[in-house]
Amino acid sequence: MKKLLFASAALAPLLFLASPIHAAPTPDRVEAMRDAALKDDLAWEITEGLTTEVGARPAGTEAEARARDWAVAKLKTLGFANVRVETFDMPVWVRGEEKAEIVAPFPQKLAVTALGNSGATSPEGLSAEVIGFDSLADLEVASATSVKGKIVFVSHGMVATQDGSGYGYYGGVRRAGPSIAARKGAVAIVIRSIGTDYHRNPHTGVQRWADGVTPIPAGALSLPDADQLQRILKRGKPVTMRLTLTPRNIGTQQSGNVIAEVPGRDPKAGIVLVGGHLDSWDLATGAIDDATGVAITTAAAKRIMEAGKPLRTIRVVWFGAEEVGLFGGLDYLARHKDEKHAVIAESDLGADRIFRFDSKVSAEALPVVAEIAQALAPLGIVKGPTDRAGGSDIGPLSASGVPTFELAQDATRYFDYHHTPDDTLDKVDPEQLRQNVAAWTAMLAIAANAPVEFGPVPPTPSR
Amino acid sequence: MKKLLFASAALAPLLFLASPIHAAPTPDRVEAMRDAALKDDLAWEITEGLTTEVGARPAGTEAEARARDWAVAKLKTLGFANVRVETFDMPVWVRGEEKAEIVAPFPQKLAVTALGNSGATSPEGLSAEVIGFDSLADLEVASATSVKGKIVFVSHGMVATQDGSGYGYYGGVRRAGPSIAARKGAVAIVIRSIGTDYHRNPHTGVQRWADGVTPIPAGALSLPDADQLQRILKRGKPVTMRLTLTPRNIGTQQSGNVIAEVPGRDPKAGIVLVGGHLDSWDLATGAIDDATGVAITTAAAKRIMEAGKPLRTIRVVWFGAEEVGLFGGLDYLARHKDEKHAVIAESDLGADRIFRFDSKVSAEALPVVAEIAQALAPLGIVKGPTDRAGGSDIGPLSASGVPTFELAQDATRYFDYHHTPDDTLDKVDPEQLRQNVAAWTAMLAIAANAPVEFGPVPPTPSR
Repeated sequence: MKKLLFASAALAPLLFLASPIHAAPTPDRVEAMRDAALKDDLAWEITEGLTTEVGARPAGTEAEARARDWAVAKLKTLGFANVRVETFDMPVWVRGEEKAEIVAPFPQKLAVTALGNSGATSPEGLSAEVIGFDSLADLEVASATSVKGKIVFVSHGMVATQDGSGYGYYGGVRRAGPSIAARKGAVAIVIRSIGTDYHRNPHTGVQRWADGVTPIPAGALSLPDADQLQRILKRGKPVTMRLTLTPRNIGTQQSGNVIAEVPGRDPKAGIVLVGGHLDSWDLATGAIDDATGVAITTAAAKRIMEAGKPLRTIRVVWFGAEEVGLFGGLDYLARHKDEKHAVIAESDLGADRIFRFDSKVSAEALPVVAEIAQALAPLGIVKGPTDRAGGSDIGPLSASGVPTFELAQDATRYFDYHHTPDDTLDKVDPEQLRQNVAAWTAMLAIAANAPVEFGPVPPTPSR
Repeated sequence: MKKLLFASAALAPLLFLASPIHAAPTPDRVEAMRDAALKDDLAWEITEGLTTEVGARPAGTEAEARARDWAVAKLKTLGFANVRVETFDMPVWVRGEEKAEIVAPFPQKLAVTALGNSGATSPEGLSAEVIGFDSLADLEVASATSVKGKIVFVSHGMVATQDGSGYGYYGGVRRAGPSIAARKGAVAIVIRSIGTDYHRNPHTGVQRWADGVTPIPAGALSLPDADQLQRILKRGKPVTMRLTLTPRNIGTQQSGNVIAEVPGRDPKAGIVLVGGHLDSWDLATGAIDDATGVAITTAAAKRIMEAGKPLRTIRVVWFGAEEVGLFGGLDYLARHKDEKHAVIAESDLGADRIFRFDSKVSAEALPVVAEIAQALAPLGIVKGPTDRAGGSDIGPLSASGVPTFELAQDATRYFDYHHTPDDTLDKVDPEQLRQNVAAWTAMLAIAANAPVEFGPVPPTPSR
């Protein structure tokens, strides 16, 4: 605590009362809270409960509405204050039938799944010759003549990285590939899944059509199927594929953010916002994407609540409709942009160990960042940059200039499961989950009580 | 060679000619052939070709017929003699639509696949309450009253073993569970897949209805889904499942064994039969089950062929219709039981390293077994029992008292992929595949030239 009690006129309103219950926790106390959290069961309980009792919860569907009901009941039971749902409307796309097969020269089925917002084939599917590209760059320079009337196949060489940075780079195939193929006159596109596993469970994910582009059917093949198609194409004979994807848009539906709070002592001290997203893709129960995110942050906030009223209000947000376009994050920004957010942080990269603590804070807050880093070090977490941090749901807030923390998780195996049917509870390692809760507990114990301003900071570009 | 040249009146007809080309290979020569095979590319070429150019090849279908054509062309190109197909008729069951979902209390989809010979639901599926059992033994002792009208769910605790022995034990849930459930009046059964992976690709496999039992729909859930159903059942509320499985029997169709030979010098010396099975399950390209089996044994036989005419004829058999009931093995037995088989061996447990060399031979042949074991040791292969060895396609022959070798493969990860959509080329490790070819080459070089009788041996029970 001594490190933080540097009195200044500007900070006077934030200084603690003398009562121990109102003091910022000492380093010893933070350490004790952190280590107690290494025995946490709540994050597992939330993850297990949400994935078992609700299952998949695609944005804007009745399953996501059931998930909100589940969340509200759970958060109230846990003793959080101001538990509420903030609803918003959004366009909803739902998956239909999905089939792909090589018709010639070597007839066989391929495992395919539609990308978000894919156009539809007829129920009987469409057949066309396949034209293959090894990368998005190759598709970009291809002539429209060579692509017109064909099914475009784009491969790529994504490999796993600890910080998940491969997703941004290789994800371009999914985000931009369909619009580029459609513009060049392709009748459909299938991409190699943006993933790193070798199971026949393709990775879905959202893509949005560029302005003026007429949607075409857009799917992803599993990596074994993408390899197979490449081998077949290399034989040099014309390859005909039949593709059936029958997703549809079901119009405007309701989604919502679930919000709960640990009230702080000083409303002027600003809110510490933490959370993850409640919705999941439809193919699995969304255990690591992102039941664990809401579970970790909620379990940590609950520990702060039990340790006595913090200086700042901790607001836990279980965002809705993240997967399909950050609708929850954008709705939150629209409603709450005028509230003072002291610092924000999100958990949405699985449930494996946190290995780095990044931040984007003012120079004044650097001693607090150092204190947090010191508390995290025994968990195997290193101090990362102090000029960048982010998240998806909190991206709109970060972009508007709110100080941000990022407890970076090890993503080495994340893209083995991400957006596939394999994102299920068994992928969560309870010990690594507890390490996450311990890190978030330590971070929150300090951040919610630190008598500094974390900002101002320059806006962070949204991810 | 000196070890083998113990003259005996009984063996006189088998003694080698003086010409070096007709001598059994010396230990040095076997060693050289073995080590050259560690650079083998043919087994990969066959595996890659068959899985790419044919893909899945379910027994009795046009895909298996295409596979036979592919095999004949390949074996002829490789220079084998007497390449031919021996056809036989068999009843054929084909997969239909497959869906499972929990209707109440927690609506969600489950990943299911039909077991071989499963009965069918109506196209709309059937809904019933689920009754869960932790093991086949629990189902066996359950009262018919408790089971009648319900969907039976049977779990179990299969774990991976190096020798694959878990399959025999836990496989009983698949082989016997459906008939037991049907007898007790269940409307359907779903089992926890006989597998060891945590991917949402259920494991199919054959089961046969006991006499007098009316077939019911019978499926397997993936392990994540089986866990999920167990968690849901543990909540204690009645669980309703909707199950849709629409497989059908398409009557008698043609399958066949593809046979090729490396002719030997002495017809009286008997045949060394090696092989694997050509058919695969329909869910994947059957890379490790069993493209690699035919590839390994063919590549090894080709190496013997190139080394000069062996004493004994090597007969390579690519069996048809193994998966659905050893139809190929039984047809082979019926046609060839009166021919003299010196020794037989099969590769059908994937493509990972061979770790043990088992045999079932006469006492007279034990020195040859020791010689083979010595040639295999540098490959990391230990000498196993000399009183038991087997295989599935060769089971009928073994059962009839034919001497048998078994090059036991490491099955630790075999049941992660076995009978799932994940049995694809990427699961084959080229280096381990080469170790297999080297081991089979060394074994064949010795066995095809050894001037001993491997039998008589007592019959081996069919697996």
